[in-house]
Amino acid sequence: MTNTSFVDPRLELIAAASHFYQQGWMVGTAGNLSCRIPDGSFWITASGRSKGELQLGDFIRMHPDGRIEREGSANNLKPSAETSIHQTIYSLFPDAIACYHVHSVEANLVSGFTNSDNLSLPPLEMLKGLGVWEENPNCEIPVFTNHLQVPQIAAEIEKRFSKTSPQIPALLIRNHGVTVWGKSTTDARNYTELVEYIFRYMVAYKK
Amino acid sequence: MTNTSFVDPRLELIAAASHFYQQGWMVGTAGNLSCRIPDGSFWITASGRSKGELQLGDFIRMHPDGRIEREGSANNLKPSAETSIHQTIYSLFPDAIACYHVHSVEANLVSGFTNSDNLSLPPLEMLKGLGVWEENPNCEIPVFTNHLQVPQIAAEIEKRFSKTSPQIPALLIRNHGVTVWGKSTTDARNYTELVEYIFRYMVAYKK
Amino acid sequence: MTNTSFVDPRLELIAAASHFYQQGWMVGTAGNLSCRIPDGSFWITASGRSKGELQLGDFIRMHPDGRIEREGSANNLKPSAETSIHQTIYSLFPDAIACYHVHSVEANLVSGFTNSDNLSLPPLEMLKGLGVWEENPNCEIPVFTNHLQVPQIAAEIEKRFSKTSPQIPALLIRNHGVTVWGKSTTDARNYTELVEYIFRYMVAYKK
Amino acid sequence: MTNTSFVDPRLELIAAASHFYQQGWMVGTAGNLSCRIPDGSFWITASGRSKGELQLGDFIRMHPDGRIEREGSANNLKPSAETSIHQTIYSLFPDAIACYHVHSVEANLVSGFTNSDNLSLPPLEMLKGLGVWEENPNCEIPVFTNHLQVPQIAAEIEKRFSKTSPQIPALLIRNHGVTVWGKSTTDARNYTELVEYIFRYMVAYKK
Repeated sequence: MTNTSFVDPRLELIAAASHFYQQGWMVGTAGNLSCRIPDGSFWITASGRSKGELQLGDFIRMHPDGRIEREGSANNLKPSAETSIHQTIYSLFPDAIACYHVHSVEANLVSGFTNSDNLSLPPLEMLKGLGVWEENPNCEIPVFTNHLQVPQIAAEIEKRFSKTSPQIPALLIRNHGVTVWGKSTTDARNYTELVEYIFRYMVAYKK
Repeated sequence: MTNTSFVDPRLELIAAASHFYQQGWMVGTAGNLSCRIPDGSFWITASGRSKGELQLGDFIRMHPDGRIEREGSANNLKPSAETSIHQTIYSLFPDAIACYHVHSVEANLVSGFTNSDNLSLPPLEMLKGLGVWEENPNCEIPVFTNHLQVPQIAAEIEKRFSKTSPQIPALLIRNHGVTVWGKSTTDARNYTELVEYIFRYMVAYKK
Repeated sequence: MTNTSFVDPRLELIAAASHFYQQGWMVGTAGNLSCRIPDGSFWITASGRSKGELQLGDFIRMHPDGRIEREGSANNLKPSAETSIHQTIYSLFPDAIACYHVHSVEANLVSGFTNSDNLSLPPLEMLKGLGVWEENPNCEIPVFTNHLQVPQIAAEIEKRFSKTSPQIPALLIRNHGVTVWGKSTTDARNYTELVEYIFRYMVAYKK
Repeated sequence: MTNTSFVDPRLELIAAASHFYQQGWMVGTAGNLSCRIPDGSFWITASGRSKGELQLGDFIRMHPDGRIEREGSANNLKPSAETSIHQTIYSLFPDAIACYHVHSVEANLVSGFTNSDNLSLPPLEMLKGLGVWEENPNCEIPVFTNHLQVPQIAAEIEKRFSKTSPQIPALLIRNHGVTVWGKSTTDARNYTELVEYIFRYMVAYKK
């Protein structure tokens, strides 16, 4: 899980997707992973592919303005329906190199634990891995409405985060899973694991 | 998980069964998977085989009228006790190429969440993967009584679906798991994962 | 998972133990599996071995009277502390070829669902795999007290089953897991999966 | 899982970490494992490494007084933030050869089941694997406060255990997982599995 410039970053996305699929977080082709490369474009999983068995040909290379780069992109593939969220994240956070969106049962459940725009997280040690180094921290994750038109979700993310940066590099869409971003594919994978751990705790605690 | 005409479709069924077994959805030889081939006959898992380690010789080739095709079918094998349900699905839905029946704990639990003939599903994003592209959809899955004589279940499915097509390609039998069908083995595998995801959510939400 | 006379039956026990370990049913060296061979002796897992990585040298060969057969048995190994239960099962049920004892969290939980000597099981389709072919069956599994001295447990099993045979080839010891037996290692593995499935259902239903 | 002097003990730690990671007990780089070697120094996992894919170069060799042994230690690596707890355990228990610290959701949940300094454990058969050979034992696991400064936690462990030895080789830190120790890496692995089993039981029982 080192992240050198010599490894095709799609291999990192394939490995992460396979692991997340086995956890039940990317079943039935759900979710999408992306990774930004030095020229500013990013690789993103194509629509409708099983995330447990991705291949190099299952990715599309896209420029920040939404233009698809022919070189490398598989033909006949549609970019993920949620590409606009990835574009927004890369635009908002210049340091972000990877952006992962997965759908766990627990993420859906906790998104219903509040009617507010933010969900309070318990003061678990695990928050340190997300960059929160406080004793008994008050930490929240932003929650967004799930619109049928994904660009509307992206616009609301853009609007809110332009004003206020979130405490942790993650956001929830109601009934539609979590999105995290990080400075490397390794960070994005770790953050995904950490938020999902926290959601599991919250669901079990609630019962 | 591509589905070309050059791959023996039994290999797809073997891979899906192994995956479902590992999820705990086909334990103790439970469940049965089938796939229709161009001549109109279909391969179906034989009775009493462990679904985690199927082999090519663990399938029976059956014609729509219930006649067993000798060519390819293993000798000494009994077709699955639930073959009549597969026959009914292929007869009702000419586009169906694969039909998967699995027994998860969650499918059994949710089948008891209603006394009605239909079970309401929550408005999860995951419904899109089952073909429901609406904002906050009202979606139901049909529920059937579990009779000791499986052909009686099949007859009730035939009777109800001849009048009303279900909203999603799936049905529940009380205390007896879910059956899904699709235009390819890939679709059937994805649909199985999606309905099981929704059932997990419903069980966790209920608690 | 075929069970021919040409395969060393310890290989079947090793494969089953590895699978059960991965399910969390044989953690921390818990549980023991045995298999009877044609001369009437049986192979049983030695005490204190991790069940996820058993080897041929981790078994002891024992005669029905408790005498350890030197040939094949590893030196320096103690037979499982629960050997007397296996002896009792083989003595009571002449058809039994394999006897598996595992400790799941769910088996412990359901053993506390009743104070009686028998626990009612829900009328799940899965009971068919355990030999119960009825519509809405009333089925019970016997429950025994957990004594510190295992031979006392074995004596109570012997006493009760000499009078009344159980409805299914399985018994619970309170806070101490389930024991199943069958006419082959394949049957014992399937029965283990089936009773554990039923226990998972019962625990989830109770919540 | 044999523990001979010819095997590099880091290989045991790597195997255990990979297994624990797959159980969800070491996600997002959480947790740390260590093993004492004959000269009194110990190998401990470096900070910030994914526990599912450790390599020999991901360990630091440390002396009891906290001095890092250059030979073998990877450069540029920081010792785990929780090293002081391992030092304290090795200092308190001269027989301890391995010390494992993992973060399960269940360990966090049960640490909140009491406000006291000790948590009562249920009288499960599994306690035998932790050395408690009694009928219906009254067994407790010590619970410590989670301070932001880990050495403060270590000091409180040192203070309490100097006066009273715990009944089982394990301790909980609130919202911060469990730590176990044993006379071998095999024992530490088994103890980890056993305490996690007991926590799973306690969480499910509570619901």
